[in-house]
Amino acid sequence: MPILNKDMKLCISLAARPSNNGTLFHNHLYGQLGLNWIYKAFAPTDLAQAIAGVRGLGIRGAAVSMPYKEAVIPLVDHVAASAAAIDSVNTIVNDNGVLTAHNTDYSAVLELLKTRNISPSLRTAVRGSGGMAKAVVAALRDAGFDDVVVVARNESAGRILARAYGFEWAAEAEDGAELLVNVTPIGMAGGGDADRMPFSLEQVTASQVVFDVVAMPVQTPLIRAARNAGKPVVTGADVATLQAVEQFVLYTGLTPTEEQVREAREFMLANTQAN
Amino acid sequence: MPILNKDMKLCISLAARPSNNGTLFHNHLYGQLGLNWIYKAFAPTDLAQAIAGVRGLGIRGAAVSMPYKEAVIPLVDHVAASAAAIDSVNTIVNDNGVLTAHNTDYSAVLELLKTRNISPSLRTAVRGSGGMAKAVVAALRDAGFDDVVVVARNESAGRILARAYGFEWAAEAEDGAELLVNVTPIGMAGGGDADRMPFSLEQVTASQVVFDVVAMPVQTPLIRAARNAGKPVVTGADVATLQAVEQFVLYTGLTPTEEQVREAREFMLANTQAN
Repeated sequence: MPILNKDMKLCISLAARPSNNGTLFHNHLYGQLGLNWIYKAFAPTDLAQAIAGVRGLGIRGAAVSMPYKEAVIPLVDHVAASAAAIDSVNTIVNDNGVLTAHNTDYSAVLELLKTRNISPSLRTAVRGSGGMAKAVVAALRDAGFDDVVVVARNESAGRILARAYGFEWAAEAEDGAELLVNVTPIGMAGGGDADRMPFSLEQVTASQVVFDVVAMPVQTPLIRAARNAGKPVVTGADVATLQAVEQFVLYTGLTPTEEQVREAREFMLANTQAN
Repeated sequence: MPILNKDMKLCISLAARPSNNGTLFHNHLYGQLGLNWIYKAFAPTDLAQAIAGVRGLGIRGAAVSMPYKEAVIPLVDHVAASAAAIDSVNTIVNDNGVLTAHNTDYSAVLELLKTRNISPSLRTAVRGSGGMAKAVVAALRDAGFDDVVVVARNESAGRILARAYGFEWAAEAEDGAELLVNVTPIGMAGGGDADRMPFSLEQVTASQVVFDVVAMPVQTPLIRAARNAGKPVVTGADVATLQAVEQFVLYTGLTPTEEQVREAREFMLANTQAN
């Protein structure tokens, strides 16, 4: 970390309850790449005033989290395709006062589907109906998947999400899915369902690929079962890391190496757990 | 410097051409006092939006420099006595969204006049008619000085300033002044008048106290001549340091020790010169 100075560019995050992850990850990468930049999370008291501050203070970028991902849309100048695909923003880039909204959750999922060579012909079950499920379902559609079932206990939310992207809804996961995607908190550390799986062991065994967006722990019960069964997996840590790297690239125009990303991620995890 | 984290409180400065001094001085003091705070200078693109950002992002404090010291007044909620005395703001404190404007240049000069036991009965010549001259002249009035001449080549500005605080104007310093105060850039490093003195050597020799607000260098030609003549002096570094400490106290509620202030000042000077 260089001595703090007046010339540092600032990036921020806006969330009602910010985590420390972005602050740790981005600042570590700035240090690794020798950038005179700084990153800090904020819990804004007023979203419109905070976005005015992004413009007025010349803040280069802002990550946007709950509950501001949709509310921020009327406050920006342009909406990039990634954010328009799901009407949800998680990244704002400020080019000399012109604010463009992106969604790197969507683009990271889309990228992972492609780079991991997950065939769009797979029969797919997506469990979940929240904001991140929307990013996943839109990415599946835009990657060419056409046999997708949205599995959600909440029938109304599940039907709306499925219909919006041309898919079907089901209350429970049926057998036969080849790609299993979890976008619920099941398996997340600290929640009430930390020890449970969003799909049955039989469904995991019968699948070809398992994708979990839960990032903490990296090894959820679902991911552990899939690995034990020899299935290729995409983890929530993969999504979280890639979307953060995409934010970094949008802000700085620089692409860190895989080694630099791995180190920044380890730094983040070590210090998050210490807090 | 601790690892940057989401919980850090932020203080900023707003100036068209920020110096690095505040960023270096405050961050060093935060480190010395173990505060999880951070300080960064900004050159805002729009003052009203920047102040909205102070509110919306919950930024704790903002130093205000040229050319925003008067323009910021309608954007705050309260004007403290120090800023009201000269209709000029150099410090904003944000208490849960309520912004109060202060002027620590004024209050630092007033404090130095008192703590250095400079008698208000001294015949005083103040050279200069800009914003800092206003702070000095107001502080002299409020410290009880009543024989003050504002010396300024700019007759209009000089007369307006002198009259506003009940004093006289003169185009040139007349002999007989016991307290000499320089509030012009004469003697400032890097300017065209770095080697000149705002008062004659004879006037310095005949005076009782010499006060220079030029902070760089600490040893201006005026201060050097005064010290050579055995006169007590107040330097621009004294004013700059005390006003910064007063900002620090307003923001944090904590008073650093003299030793901590001295170290922070040395850190600032070492790194300013390195830039």
